[in-house]
Amino acid sequence: MLLLHLSDVDEARWGEQFRAALGPYPVVRRRDDFDPADVRYIFVWKPQPDAFDGLSGLKTILSLGAGVDALLKHPALPDVPIVRFVDQDLSQRMSDYVVAHVTMHHRLYTRFQADQKARRWNQIYPPAASETTVGIMGMGVLGQDAVRRLKPLGFALRSWSRTARTIEGVEGFAGAEYFDAFLADTDILVNLLPLTPETAGILNSDTFGKLRRDKLSGGPAIINAARGGHQREADIVKALADGTLGAASLDVFETEPLPASSPLWAIENCYITPHIAAISNEKSGVAYFSEIIRKHETGEPLINVVDRSLGY
Amino acid sequence: MLLLHLSDVDEARWGEQFRAALGPYPVVRRRDDFDPADVRYIFVWKPQPDAFDGLSGLKTILSLGAGVDALLKHPALPDVPIVRFVDQDLSQRMSDYVVAHVTMHHRLYTRFQADQKARRWNQIYPPAASETTVGIMGMGVLGQDAVRRLKPLGFALRSWSRTARTIEGVEGFAGAEYFDAFLADTDILVNLLPLTPETAGILNSDTFGKLRRDKLSGGPAIINAARGGHQREADIVKALADGTLGAASLDVFETEPLPASSPLWAIENCYITPHIAAISNEKSGVAYFSEIIRKHETGEPLINVVDRSLGY
Repeated sequence: MLLLHLSDVDEARWGEQFRAALGPYPVVRRRDDFDPADVRYIFVWKPQPDAFDGLSGLKTILSLGAGVDALLKHPALPDVPIVRFVDQDLSQRMSDYVVAHVTMHHRLYTRFQADQKARRWNQIYPPAASETTVGIMGMGVLGQDAVRRLKPLGFALRSWSRTARTIEGVEGFAGAEYFDAFLADTDILVNLLPLTPETAGILNSDTFGKLRRDKLSGGPAIINAARGGHQREADIVKALADGTLGAASLDVFETEPLPASSPLWAIENCYITPHIAAISNEKSGVAYFSEIIRKHETGEPLINVVDRSLGY
Repeated sequence: MLLLHLSDVDEARWGEQFRAALGPYPVVRRRDDFDPADVRYIFVWKPQPDAFDGLSGLKTILSLGAGVDALLKHPALPDVPIVRFVDQDLSQRMSDYVVAHVTMHHRLYTRFQADQKARRWNQIYPPAASETTVGIMGMGVLGQDAVRRLKPLGFALRSWSRTARTIEGVEGFAGAEYFDAFLADTDILVNLLPLTPETAGILNSDTFGKLRRDKLSGGPAIINAARGGHQREADIVKALADGTLGAASLDVFETEPLPASSPLWAIENCYITPHIAAISNEKSGVAYFSEIIRKHETGEPLINVVDRSLGY
């Protein structure tokens, strides 16, 4: 039996689609009449505190979110494998966001917008993509997809990750001891890290001060498409004001929705989107998890299981 | 002998570099002491009315600009081959501009900027790149380079050109009779056409009204990276105001510099850059034209010669 437990999304519609995909396999919601002990799979998004109560036969947690940092903090999380969503459609959308904001900063959008407001015809020529270095933090599925999209555009690419990665055309840096070297030649910093105790607050004044300053007119730029917990917003406000950063694109925030009182809203070189860089697509989600259930029921091993010690 | 005739750029620096590249072959400027009859090549940018006076031995005109529409209107243009600049670096920079503005409109930048100003957290999800069609007018060197960069991003691509082109992954349309069909499914229209009597004013109300309206939230977008003569600015002002267009990115204008009195400056969904999408790079220009002179002097045929009947 598959139990759906989805907050803030249309659970009924997901239910219909799972029923269509899984055929005779029972799919239930909490409000339905069923025995909790029969539940073998639970599909979750923002689970409530009582989400797992009574699920004595639970074999696997299926997480709609690609990031499981919030799920891992659930006070009553059962000790069963967690399968996270690895979604080709989500990767595409995330890369769409990343490419749009990388190219915007590379093409000095902030500068030209200011000139337009002043009705000023000021011919500054942006550097060629090949003269601009994009540094990507995080080389998981999303980081690798971003590389695949950015490479044909001609950017110089470098990556920073927990463990060393060899990706063609990308200068790889790994571990805390190489973080400064990674930052030193980065013009545009893209965060696609999982949120863990080691990466929380990594987008801070110290990091910003180490980025390359002399290539991109106006200063280096950051793009955070991962989690609000990665960024110190007070530091971003300061860095955008004093020129340590030329621009910031933020899709995620310490508190979401971003409170109306946040100073970020009013900063002209801060580009805010309301956590819409990428959303899991219903169709691909149902196809992905139905396949996982079907294969697991026939004895095949699970894929994309979260390593709880790493947090992703 | 090579004569340089460059307005608005640093002619002296070009001269030094040509001398370094061409060795003993004489390179002169108008102010120098030489016999005009000895000039075999003239390298021009924005030639003055008297640019070609006395050049009785002229064999070839070398044009720094990739577009030769203005040059072809010169009242005293000699009847010798014109070689235009085909510059890999310029193509890269032009594609940088095109990709930055295509992705900006695809990711609904105008909408999120308005929401940010209102401190509004409004989760709209842009379509995937694969659900968005970019229509490129002009499939010369620049159009083909734009295709090469946009294809890996996942956009649906279509092209419109004078003569039919077969490019993998691009739906090709050719000729006036297929223009409406080309527009009908285009969400983001990119102009990279040469400016000719047939293409002048092609970005007008009639064209805008035929673009696809239901895919891109806010309406279709146009991007003009070619020539100001392609666009009717009064029509753009009107289309942006009444919602026929959701946004416009303009790098070129009917009059340049764009007069301070132009209404375009103040339109929020009009993205103005001061004709900086791409500039010919000195280094690659000197290398390209030096090679052409060297080979031509040894009897090899010229390359990239302008067809005056086509205008490019």
